[in-house]
This record gives sequence, structure tokens and C-alpha cells, in this order.
Amino acid sequence: MASPRKLNCPLPDALWAALEARTRNTGETLDQAVVRCLGEALDLSRHSIFQISTSAALVKGVYQGAATVAEVKRHGDFGLGTFENLDGEGMQLDGNCFQAKGDGSVTQPSDATPVPFWVTTRFKADRTETLSEVRSWADLCDRLTKLRTSDNLVAAIRLDGVLDFVHVRTACKSAPGTDLVTAASRQKEFKFEKVQGTLLGFFTPTYARTINVPGYHLHLLTEDRKHGGHVLEVRAARLQALLHLTSDLHLVLPENEEFLKANLTQDPAAALAKAEGGAATNS
Amino acid sequence: MASPRKLNCPLPDALWAALEARTRNTGETLDQAVVRCLGEALDLSRHSIFQISTSAALVKGVYQGAATVAEVKRHGDFGLGTFENLDGEGMQLDGNCFQAKGDGSVTQPSDATPVPFWVTTRFKADRTETLSEVRSWADLCDRLTKLRTSDNLVAAIRLDGVLDFVHVRTACKSAPGTDLVTAASRQKEFKFEKVQGTLLGFFTPTYARTINVPGYHLHLLTEDRKHGGHVLEVRAARLQALLHLTSDLHLVLPENEEFLKANLTQDPAAALAKAEGGAATNS
Repeated sequence: MASPRKLNCPLPDALWAALEARTRNTGETLDQAVVRCLGEALDLSRHSIFQISTSAALVKGVYQGAATVAEVKRHGDFGLGTFENLDGEGMQLDGNCFQAKGDGSVTQPSDATPVPFWVTTRFKADRTETLSEVRSWADLCDRLTKLRTSDNLVAAIRLDGVLDFVHVRTACKSAPGTDLVTAASRQKEFKFEKVQGTLLGFFTPTYARTINVPGYHLHLLTEDRKHGGHVLEVRAARLQALLHLTSDLHLVLPENEEFLKANLTQDPAAALAKAEGGAATNS
Repeated sequence: MASPRKLNCPLPDALWAALEARTRNTGETLDQAVVRCLGEALDLSRHSIFQISTSAALVKGVYQGAATVAEVKRHGDFGLGTFENLDGEGMQLDGNCFQAKGDGSVTQPSDATPVPFWVTTRFKADRTETLSEVRSWADLCDRLTKLRTSDNLVAAIRLDGVLDFVHVRTACKSAPGTDLVTAASRQKEFKFEKVQGTLLGFFTPTYARTINVPGYHLHLLTEDRKHGGHVLEVRAARLQALLHLTSDLHLVLPENEEFLKANLTQDPAAALAKAEGGAATNS
């Protein structure tokens, strides 16, 4: 057997000091500590969700960038989010980020683009199933619930196939401080038939509703990368469902004045249901 | 200037693959990726809170170990928690963990000891202030609130000094599944006068009340390491207050059957207030 490859990398003094402090605290050798730290940071040890800001902040209209697309990409290759001033819906698939705007266009934002809210993970399917004859959004949610093992873990969800019908909305750029319900009332809606694409997103437990959007939250990205948005309604003859179950959430809170001063004490459940559910019954 | 020290460490193949995938996704060089990953894992880049399980789970009686004292120590040197079957109160100070039991004793749990809930951080004070004539728990909370900059960030808090009076409770070992309010009703209470010690713990934003205990949550550890517990009431002529403000929460959810099957949909605020507040007015 070949001997393992060796890392040969210069480290700043502060990092050496922190590594050495770690080995003193834990009794690990330096090599063990390096392997464990790299494994943690690269999410090898657990299936992790990395999240920027909270749903409670979004509901209160805290839309200023807390991180950038580059930071999102460092922590995952799959996920969803939104952009500064709620300028559209964000989709992240196979490592690339996309922005679906209120005018119906989809672009790839640069790495420097600020994002006020994003949820990302390194997607590896724990379960793969085929869903036949998906009749509605409610039906899809019921079918996905049967594939999950617990309502207390976050699940990342990817659905690929031909969508017989899909109804999406995209948020439109709003003035800073506009609350989410008001902003969502000006959203644009789009309907597509017979389109190849991916629905991507998350199931979030009810208890985490002040942190992330509770229940199922999926965005569309069409295979030609021309259309996308927040999914309100869907029908499909056959979808391939990939589920990635996680037990590890890394939450980064914004440090801007807007977030620090916001009143986030209210339960955002009702506002989230209104803003995120949108015209779901109107399909 | 001396050239920087080099890390020379063998890595498993899976870690090489993950590192290389990371550099492809982000455009970083291998050395840059290693430095950034180690910095993240060692919490150099941000002030992070690492948390095991949630307050919602504790309230529902999910007390089985989700991690160990060793894992707690890897992620922080300061914090609080509890033990399997709610067997006492946990304190972590300067890297060491302590267990205050219902019989009034304090011991140092082994690294293999399971913990169902713990909050830890690498404590570095952002603010240091002297608090004079602390008249009560309520007064202490008001004074600490003036030292914080936002109600939307978690703050780690350390208070050192002579406590003229301190009233604590310690949870007593309970049967699995006993809810927190019932378990807390059997807690033991202890009062001390003129004792040198440390109050240690956290301020948690209201919006995170399903995740952690909201508001101020402090445990006592006396300087002789003989007494400890969850603080209900306090008076002190002079305390040194150290505040460590954080914007980064790493939450690890248990993967045991007990957690996965628990009904965590209710708001635990009322139960937490009752169980954690205890006999605070009875001092």
C-alpha cells in the first residue's frame, strides 16, 4: 500500500498557536488535530447545513448583504437564498449560483455579490426514490414526508425531471426595511408547462421556524438555466427525488446595524406562511 | 524575518479529495484552503458558539447523551450544559468541565461522559467592566443588558468575584422521558454567603428560544470547585464582568431515536421559564 500523501503547507503563527492550544486541551497529536479540523471544516464528518442570517430577520425586512456568493460557495454546493434588497430568488446547484429576478431573467451572480440570507450544504444523497404522478404541491409535500425519518432534522431535497406544470414567484427588489409580507405582495409570478428542471431546497423542522423557513421550501431552476423562482405549485408524471439528511446546522448571524437593531422577538410563522406560501392555491 | 513554520502532516485520501474539490469550487490554492479550513475549525475567524441539542428537546425530556465531554472540549473552553438523565448542572471554565449533582457535590466528569445538551465557546472577552453593588438577579440582568450591543446576538458572560449571596439549584437524575418542568420540580436548592466564585453562561436572543434557553442563563462554580449549580438569585458588592459577543452558532442535533421521534413543535417558552427560573423569587 502506498504511504499517505503529506500536506506541506506554511501556517501563520496565530494558527500554530491555536493548533497547539487545541492539542493541549484535547490530548490529540498535532497530526490528529489537523485531520480532524480539516474534516470538520470540509464537512466530511457530518452532513452540515451552513446558513447566513435567519427567517426572523428576513420577515422584518433585514435584506442587506451579510455575506457574499463566494462565502456561500465555500460552505456548500447546493442550496437557496436571496439577494440584497430581496432582488430575486437564489438557487445553487452543482456548485453554481443563479439569480432569478422579477423581470423573469436568470443570471449567474459574481462571487462578490452580497447575500442577506442563504442556506447551503454539500449535497450527498442519503435516499434516492422515484415519485410518480405528483399531483400538486401538497401531494409532493406528503410524498416527501414519507421519505424522511424525522421531523426534527433538516433535510436537503433535490427533485429532477420534467415538470408538467410549475408555478413560481420571484421577489422584486424592495426598499431596505420593507417587511417580507409587503415585499412579497409585489412579487412576480410565472407559470411553465412541460419544462425539464430541478426543484431544490430544504425541509426545516417547525421548532426552527425563527431561524429558517419551516416545512418545505423549494426553488426551481430549469435545465436550460433560463427560468427559476420560489415554487408555489407543481405537477409532474415522474420526478427523481434525492434526500440528504442533516443533523448539523452552522448559523452565521449578520453583524450589520440593520440586523443588530432589528426587533426579532415576534414569532414570524404567520408572516412567513403568507409571504412564502404566496398564491399557492391560485394555480 | 523568519520564514513561516510548515505543517507536514499525512492526510487520508478522502480528505485530499475533499480539499481538492474545495479548491476547484472556490478558486483558492491548496495552501489557502488549508489555512482557511484550520482557521474556521479552530474558531479563529469568528467568535463561535458550539451547541449540542436544543432547549425544545430538553423541555420534552430528551436527556440521552448526544455527544461527550471530549467533543465539548474540542469546540470550546467555556460554557454550560447538563448530563444524561438530567443528572446535575454542567459548568465549563478555563477548559475544564464540572458536574454539580443533586447531592451538593461537584466532580470532574471523564471525557467519555455523555452529554445531552451543552453550549460552549472559546472565551475571549470583547468587553470588561466592573459591576458594583449588584442587588439581585433582576438587577444583574439589567446591568448586563447595558453592556451588550444587540439583543440579536448570543453573548457569553463570565462574572468573577465574591458573592455576598448566591442561590442555585441543581437538577436531580430523572427517568428518561420525564419532561423538564416535572424534573425541575424535584431539583435541589442551595444557598451560599460570602463565597468566591464565577458565574458563567450566556445571553440568548428571544428568537432562538426553541434552540437555547432565552435571556440570561448562568451557572455558578465556586473558586474551590466544591459548589455549583444553576443561578436563581445573587447579590455582590463587586463583580468583574467579561462579555464575549458572538455571531456564529454551530448547532449539532442528536441522532438518537429519542430526539428523532420527539414532538418538538410546541413553543417551549413557558415550560423553560418555569423550569429554568425555578424558585427565583424565593431567595
